[in-house]
Amino acid sequence: MKALVYHGPGQKSWEEVPAAAIREPTDVVVRVDTTTICGTDLHILQGDVAAVTDGRILGHEAVGTVTEVGEAVKGYAAGDRVLVPAITRCGRCEYCDRGMPSHCQTVGGIGWIFGHLIDGTQAEFVRVPYADTSLYQIPAHVTNEQAIFLADSLPTGYEVGVLAGRVRPGDTVAVVGAGAVGLAAILTTGLWGAARVIAIDANKFRLDKALEFGATDVVEAGPGVVDQVRALTDGQGADVSIEAVGYPETLLTAAALVRPGGSIANVGVHGVPVELPMQDMWIQNVTLSMGLVDTVSIPTLLKMVASGRIPAEKMGTHSFTFDQMDEAYDVFKNAAENSALKVIITPA
Amino acid sequence: MKALVYHGPGQKSWEEVPAAAIREPTDVVVRVDTTTICGTDLHILQGDVAAVTDGRILGHEAVGTVTEVGEAVKGYAAGDRVLVPAITRCGRCEYCDRGMPSHCQTVGGIGWIFGHLIDGTQAEFVRVPYADTSLYQIPAHVTNEQAIFLADSLPTGYEVGVLAGRVRPGDTVAVVGAGAVGLAAILTTGLWGAARVIAIDANKFRLDKALEFGATDVVEAGPGVVDQVRALTDGQGADVSIEAVGYPETLLTAAALVRPGGSIANVGVHGVPVELPMQDMWIQNVTLSMGLVDTVSIPTLLKMVASGRIPAEKMGTHSFTFDQMDEAYDVFKNAAENSALKVIITPA
Amino acid sequence: MKALVYHGPGQKSWEEVPAAAIREPTDVVVRVDTTTICGTDLHILQGDVAAVTDGRILGHEAVGTVTEVGEAVKGYAAGDRVLVPAITRCGRCEYCDRGMPSHCQTVGGIGWIFGHLIDGTQAEFVRVPYADTSLYQIPAHVTNEQAIFLADSLPTGYEVGVLAGRVRPGDTVAVVGAGAVGLAAILTTGLWGAARVIAIDANKFRLDKALEFGATDVVEAGPGVVDQVRALTDGQGADVSIEAVGYPETLLTAAALVRPGGSIANVGVHGVPVELPMQDMWIQNVTLSMGLVDTVSIPTLLKMVASGRIPAEKMGTHSFTFDQMDEAYDVFKNAAENSALKVIITPA
Amino acid sequence: MKALVYHGPGQKSWEEVPAAAIREPTDVVVRVDTTTICGTDLHILQGDVAAVTDGRILGHEAVGTVTEVGEAVKGYAAGDRVLVPAITRCGRCEYCDRGMPSHCQTVGGIGWIFGHLIDGTQAEFVRVPYADTSLYQIPAHVTNEQAIFLADSLPTGYEVGVLAGRVRPGDTVAVVGAGAVGLAAILTTGLWGAARVIAIDANKFRLDKALEFGATDVVEAGPGVVDQVRALTDGQGADVSIEAVGYPETLLTAAALVRPGGSIANVGVHGVPVELPMQDMWIQNVTLSMGLVDTVSIPTLLKMVASGRIPAEKMGTHSFTFDQMDEAYDVFKNAAENSALKVIITPA
Repeated sequence: MKALVYHGPGQKSWEEVPAAAIREPTDVVVRVDTTTICGTDLHILQGDVAAVTDGRILGHEAVGTVTEVGEAVKGYAAGDRVLVPAITRCGRCEYCDRGMPSHCQTVGGIGWIFGHLIDGTQAEFVRVPYADTSLYQIPAHVTNEQAIFLADSLPTGYEVGVLAGRVRPGDTVAVVGAGAVGLAAILTTGLWGAARVIAIDANKFRLDKALEFGATDVVEAGPGVVDQVRALTDGQGADVSIEAVGYPETLLTAAALVRPGGSIANVGVHGVPVELPMQDMWIQNVTLSMGLVDTVSIPTLLKMVASGRIPAEKMGTHSFTFDQMDEAYDVFKNAAENSALKVIITPA
Repeated sequence: MKALVYHGPGQKSWEEVPAAAIREPTDVVVRVDTTTICGTDLHILQGDVAAVTDGRILGHEAVGTVTEVGEAVKGYAAGDRVLVPAITRCGRCEYCDRGMPSHCQTVGGIGWIFGHLIDGTQAEFVRVPYADTSLYQIPAHVTNEQAIFLADSLPTGYEVGVLAGRVRPGDTVAVVGAGAVGLAAILTTGLWGAARVIAIDANKFRLDKALEFGATDVVEAGPGVVDQVRALTDGQGADVSIEAVGYPETLLTAAALVRPGGSIANVGVHGVPVELPMQDMWIQNVTLSMGLVDTVSIPTLLKMVASGRIPAEKMGTHSFTFDQMDEAYDVFKNAAENSALKVIITPA
Repeated sequence: MKALVYHGPGQKSWEEVPAAAIREPTDVVVRVDTTTICGTDLHILQGDVAAVTDGRILGHEAVGTVTEVGEAVKGYAAGDRVLVPAITRCGRCEYCDRGMPSHCQTVGGIGWIFGHLIDGTQAEFVRVPYADTSLYQIPAHVTNEQAIFLADSLPTGYEVGVLAGRVRPGDTVAVVGAGAVGLAAILTTGLWGAARVIAIDANKFRLDKALEFGATDVVEAGPGVVDQVRALTDGQGADVSIEAVGYPETLLTAAALVRPGGSIANVGVHGVPVELPMQDMWIQNVTLSMGLVDTVSIPTLLKMVASGRIPAEKMGTHSFTFDQMDEAYDVFKNAAENSALKVIITPA
Repeated sequence: MKALVYHGPGQKSWEEVPAAAIREPTDVVVRVDTTTICGTDLHILQGDVAAVTDGRILGHEAVGTVTEVGEAVKGYAAGDRVLVPAITRCGRCEYCDRGMPSHCQTVGGIGWIFGHLIDGTQAEFVRVPYADTSLYQIPAHVTNEQAIFLADSLPTGYEVGVLAGRVRPGDTVAVVGAGAVGLAAILTTGLWGAARVIAIDANKFRLDKALEFGATDVVEAGPGVVDQVRALTDGQGADVSIEAVGYPETLLTAAALVRPGGSIANVGVHGVPVELPMQDMWIQNVTLSMGLVDTVSIPTLLKMVASGRIPAEKMGTHSFTFDQMDEAYDVFKNAAENSALKVIITPA
């Protein structure tokens, strides 16, 4: 079979590799019908993720069809159309029991193993361990294009942004950064009844998308952001502030936007420390949350997509085939410039 | 001033009465700009509510303008446009502290006192006790027609139905009875991310309204309801079942519609006991809730109306002036036949 | 091996049966080191549970040692000391995902299968299906006598009583019925900070035990119970009322004991309908919960036992060996008369 | 009357001042029967709190007797024994509605006004504004010594530590700093069922008190703390980590002690920024909370004290009379060295 293989920083190729196969009785093999690229894949290619070594097949998001089933697997059969999420779940360790497979102790100490600790989904086929507790059946009337972004982007924006930020009915939510994950948060703020959603970004295309995805107001990134958000909120600030970029300054902006008693939900991946003004913040009764996605919200999100409440397919702005993998990466790498959010990649 | 006065079962008249006036330093007087009629008013006129005696001014819902202010009142001034809610709140008793002014020990042992234990809002002016803790300022861009149904109907459907039933994102909600309060529940299920909302009623007009208010499916009331709801839910039943009628059979229907682990939220006012099939229900891990509205959700609902997320004004289907009070009652009394939901009553 | 086999209503015998053995790759076999008897076993012997047929090995609670392991089992090895809980959990169906293996769709439509749909734990060995997601390791310093009651009684009182009743710090909790499960509720009310716990029973031994297990007040069952509980609670009633008997009159007592806004948690198993006075209750803002145990609280309870906060071993008042099985049943059947709570049964 | 008056940094005196008197119809005057000193009073005396100016009467904690009542006050009468809490609550602003009088917009933009924005409680009498919504009746059988620490210390440890940190049954809680507030947290971890409580401090007296107040383990502060806490928790870290000191290093220690998915509750008052290692923390799914006490937990804590579940009086280690005010401050200022926790100050 063919797959996209990592060969060290800056190096990848769509090449022939040994076929994916069952190794444990709890495995299945899935034929990949749709995959996509995540910002984390770009980090890997920059050499930022030491655990990913030469020869690793990339990718951790897929919709596909089960082709082989290990003998202990009871919930899936060949032919089933399934969602392969970013997080693998043993279903029995202490963290899985707590609904936190992001930190599953069994599958790798971390739940994100595809395209990281084991071969991934940017391939014709993928071996899926712990299939019974990790895969999701896709309802008949949900398309692959609707389902694919539930593998990672949507749950990330929803769980790490909206859920961790404890959005509640009537809230005003500010979202710093309207890239794919920020937009995923915006798209799902309605699940908890946000009254107003303020999107903040420097890119016009993204701000337009934000309005299309449910934002009620947009603010252009810049030095006046805090003042503008206060002006929009009777001088109070937002109830929940979601950081979806990953830099000290964007986190500090998110922190400055929130009212007393509010929540700051950090979704961004950080590379350096952040100096928090605790001398001002300690008295504000705020909460700062952060974390890796668990993907445990997928059943909820699938229901919202199935009932037409969430147009998840709108996240996909560009389509490619497997043999256009390089082109897909190029477009996604410069997403804002290309008016791109997420790419959809399918067999020819 | 003039007001609608109760004179015993079946007897009411729009007549001259002594002007509303401040009695306690915590009172204000409000000029009524908009009022409406509640199903409870009909019960009173049938003589069902013993505490309401001859001479009582009816009504417990109003939007109006403050005209006089007691000397201890700090939050309101003459000229303020305010919402007078069905529930009066002392703000300091144990029940108010728990967010349950429905059972405020101070104002009357029960929080519903207007048109019940004190004179009500179907009048040109009304005295409002405990004004600081009971009234709500209406934002400038929210109209009287948008605000009036937040005095009782919307909070009732939302608090006693959606909140008490603990609707959560992705849930399927069945609503038994699509009258004003059932529709209020339907209109607010989205605040907690319901994926599907199934409305059940015998009246075609109401089922049409249900779809307009956010229901995804409608089922005509009748012996096949349970089977039809199961067919719509993969045989499982609803996550939350809201009863908005008030008869044993409708409560039993609501109970039969819910899946294991689900919630039955009783909103209806009951007059007789209900025989629950505990021999079947005990093992179902269900919860049955019930209660009087607290109206503490008004700030949330005002924000949802202000941001355009809830079209509360759609509850008002017919308009009358104070001198058409009898006609307003007649239309509301036969709401379903008149294709009416709620009436709007204003000065000439 | 030997086991206690059901042979129709009133008939059971400790007899030779085929050895327990692995059937599925997800099974283990456990040597039973400690077991006990549940009230449900008595119901089965009365012929009340139709699904239990002639030849079935009884019992659904055990502490034991793993002797054989299926090839897909990853979390357990021969020699591990484990708790076999009353509920079996597939770990992947919709109900298990919701933390409700009581209704696991995979293992039998209901999570209680031992001594019911498959052979049980009152035996020298027991086959345990779905071992990885159903068993619990017992910490080294927790004894078998401390762990055995975590298989069913303690989680039942805690989950269906304390958790479903939503006990919160400062609450007054009334417990109607101080048998094993009522006492389990009393023993665990402290986990959520109950300020006062009022035990109600007709049996003096049980009331004494209630005080020993954490009750602050005891009331003898009888016509004056409601008045006495009101007298103990400034006329208000309890915040949470737990029913641990299973008759209409005890449920109605529990309902009468609760204050406005309170919770009635039904733990008892009911055989007939219950007529609820909804004409009085609808306005009380109360909640009535009910259900089968999930046993998902076992990790929490194990921690509380391990740290010495819950003396679970006090539930065991009488000890027997396997060959005294009949005597054990006789004592447990007349528990109150024998000053017994739960029995402990071990190999010779 | 006499009172302790602030006269600029380092300057205070117990001197004659004008008698406290009613100014608003919502005021009462309280005769102070018991007061105490808070760490914040020491900060004020160091000149750290700019809003406190020359002439201000210090103190924000009292138990006393109502002597005068404003005409709009309905809940209190002369002779009532009351708790005067650190936070004053208007009971009607948006923050009070949210249960956050710490940020009451009406009383001063901040809920802490006694001994800060208005005259305080270290005096023979104190004027209490917003009395109906701010005071608490003390049950007859609760002594002044039991009630006084519910004015600030206990609610602070409980609300900002235990509640904000979301302690849940079975949790392991680490408390960094076992001064009065850290001990208050330890004393109340049991309200949410903590299984283990690890106290960390450099002072032997405080660690002994921690064990007396409910800690299961103590660790001496120093470079090995993180390793020791991990050793006590199977290498995982605590579920909840409470910071009760207020320095960057202690907050970083608290952050390092928590497991993935855990909560860090900052209770300490900070004077400088804190550099958070977000490059390591973002993936840990942790939450950092912080804030000023609301004192809304006082009703709960009063019930726990009344039922004997919390021995609040143990916080008081030294007693003084009003004319020993200087001595009381001296002992409290060097609390650790004096084996002191909190002081009790009463009229002669």
